[in-house]
Amino acid sequence: MPPAFLAVDWGTTNRRCYAIDADGGVIATDRDARGILSVPAGGFPAEVAAMRDRFGDVPVLCAGMVGSTRGWVEAPYVACPATLADLAASLIWAEPGRTAIVPGVKDDAPDVMRGEEVQLLGAVAAGLAPSDALLCQPGTHSKWAMIANGAITGFRTAMTGELFALLRDRSLLTDFMTGPVDDGPAFHDGLALADRGTPLTSLFGERAGAVLGRNAAADVAARVSGLLIGSDVRERSLAPGATVHILAEPGLAALYAAAVRHAGGTPVAVDSHAAFLAGITAIWRLAA
Amino acid sequence: MPPAFLAVDWGTTNRRCYAIDADGGVIATDRDARGILSVPAGGFPAEVAAMRDRFGDVPVLCAGMVGSTRGWVEAPYVACPATLADLAASLIWAEPGRTAIVPGVKDDAPDVMRGEEVQLLGAVAAGLAPSDALLCQPGTHSKWAMIANGAITGFRTAMTGELFALLRDRSLLTDFMTGPVDDGPAFHDGLALADRGTPLTSLFGERAGAVLGRNAAADVAARVSGLLIGSDVRERSLAPGATVHILAEPGLAALYAAAVRHAGGTPVAVDSHAAFLAGITAIWRLAA
Repeated sequence: MPPAFLAVDWGTTNRRCYAIDADGGVIATDRDARGILSVPAGGFPAEVAAMRDRFGDVPVLCAGMVGSTRGWVEAPYVACPATLADLAASLIWAEPGRTAIVPGVKDDAPDVMRGEEVQLLGAVAAGLAPSDALLCQPGTHSKWAMIANGAITGFRTAMTGELFALLRDRSLLTDFMTGPVDDGPAFHDGLALADRGTPLTSLFGERAGAVLGRNAAADVAARVSGLLIGSDVRERSLAPGATVHILAEPGLAALYAAAVRHAGGTPVAVDSHAAFLAGITAIWRLAA
Repeated sequence: MPPAFLAVDWGTTNRRCYAIDADGGVIATDRDARGILSVPAGGFPAEVAAMRDRFGDVPVLCAGMVGSTRGWVEAPYVACPATLADLAASLIWAEPGRTAIVPGVKDDAPDVMRGEEVQLLGAVAAGLAPSDALLCQPGTHSKWAMIANGAITGFRTAMTGELFALLRDRSLLTDFMTGPVDDGPAFHDGLALADRGTPLTSLFGERAGAVLGRNAAADVAARVSGLLIGSDVRERSLAPGATVHILAEPGLAALYAAAVRHAGGTPVAVDSHAAFLAGITAIWRLAA
């Protein structure tokens, strides 16, 4: 039996395809590195045709950077407050009646997202987060979304993951950032450094400490991670005890959970794959 | 008439050589890109011999990264409080009686400097800054030094310039950071962003603003510069009206002066070349 539709989470560097049945169940899934930057100009129809060859000749619903100016067809941003129904009402049809792209969401801050909105609203639709909540989606660009009455009412993005990668791969700290990053003492030292509110100074202090033999070089990566993630969470000014629903793979989710606890908040882990599936299936049904 | 000695400000990527007479006057000077990273292993004696061939067969006094583990001979750091006499008493002789290297300075923070100490203490020795002062040396790694009774009593380094270069050259903001950076309205917008204390969020906001057409792309580089330099100055927690002596070339000095004024401080420009010459000549005389 063929799937009801194919859902594609199509990002800048990666892509994940799900074959979904009429009840919202996953029949098959595949992940590869064919993000939009690896697709040549005019190459999107062939990419989608290959997915149909593999999973079934059914409608396709795409989300993510595939709807950006660098993607297939630009899907204009929906303004906050944004619901799943708003997204479903603003689908852009790349192939009429056959392939649609979910729009991103914009905030007047200014801020923008593409792809995260499906996961965020899907978490609420699936009951994984309440309809009034603060959701955090850590990553290259970490998203913090305020959800009220089931709508994204506002959100902010921090460049946390991208800065970490730049420092690890291309900075004066690169030689020292070779150790593991996990929720251990060095990461918590980094969270304490973030509390000083002097990140530019603390970053150089990591080099100085390593040069002077004051800090173990193996700890530098974890401490820088703690400094950046701790700074990210501090920028939210969480109310005491505030609950934060975190959508991420387990390793990164554990780091953000530790930072949220350190800042006096209460983290709750949410299954981000389940959230995406619930969101994309809901949009599919609303658009039908 | 030959010079009394050659002074070499020998950094990671650049080198400046001064031929100095017995009165501390500059007879000749030359600047090139033969920083320590461009000198092959074992190549330092030949480099210094070439300088002597050109300027005169006299003693050579070097400062900067040439005294680091990646340089010619490692010159251990002198601890704070550090005076010119302390530096002169701790010269490392790379060629006995012929070529010496000035040590760097360390702070328990932890923090380290190499080369900047000559300029900082030279500014005081030359009367360009008082013997109790806060000095700022902006750059790839900006140095903030507390001077008391003519000694460096403590200092902090911020990774400001390096982060700006990473963001301009290798980040998601690179496409937008093509405009000029000067002390204009966009730079001051960046200083105001820094006051929010949310730099990770403000950085992504620059991308979002450009994507949404809210901000002129030509302004992004200046605004990011204002955000980073403003954050650097904020990390100092300047007392109201605090005087900051700034040692830098005029363009960068103007940006830091604007940020210091924005934070309620009083900037004073110091000629950084004159400061270096005064410092290295004083060390030369003290070591004689």
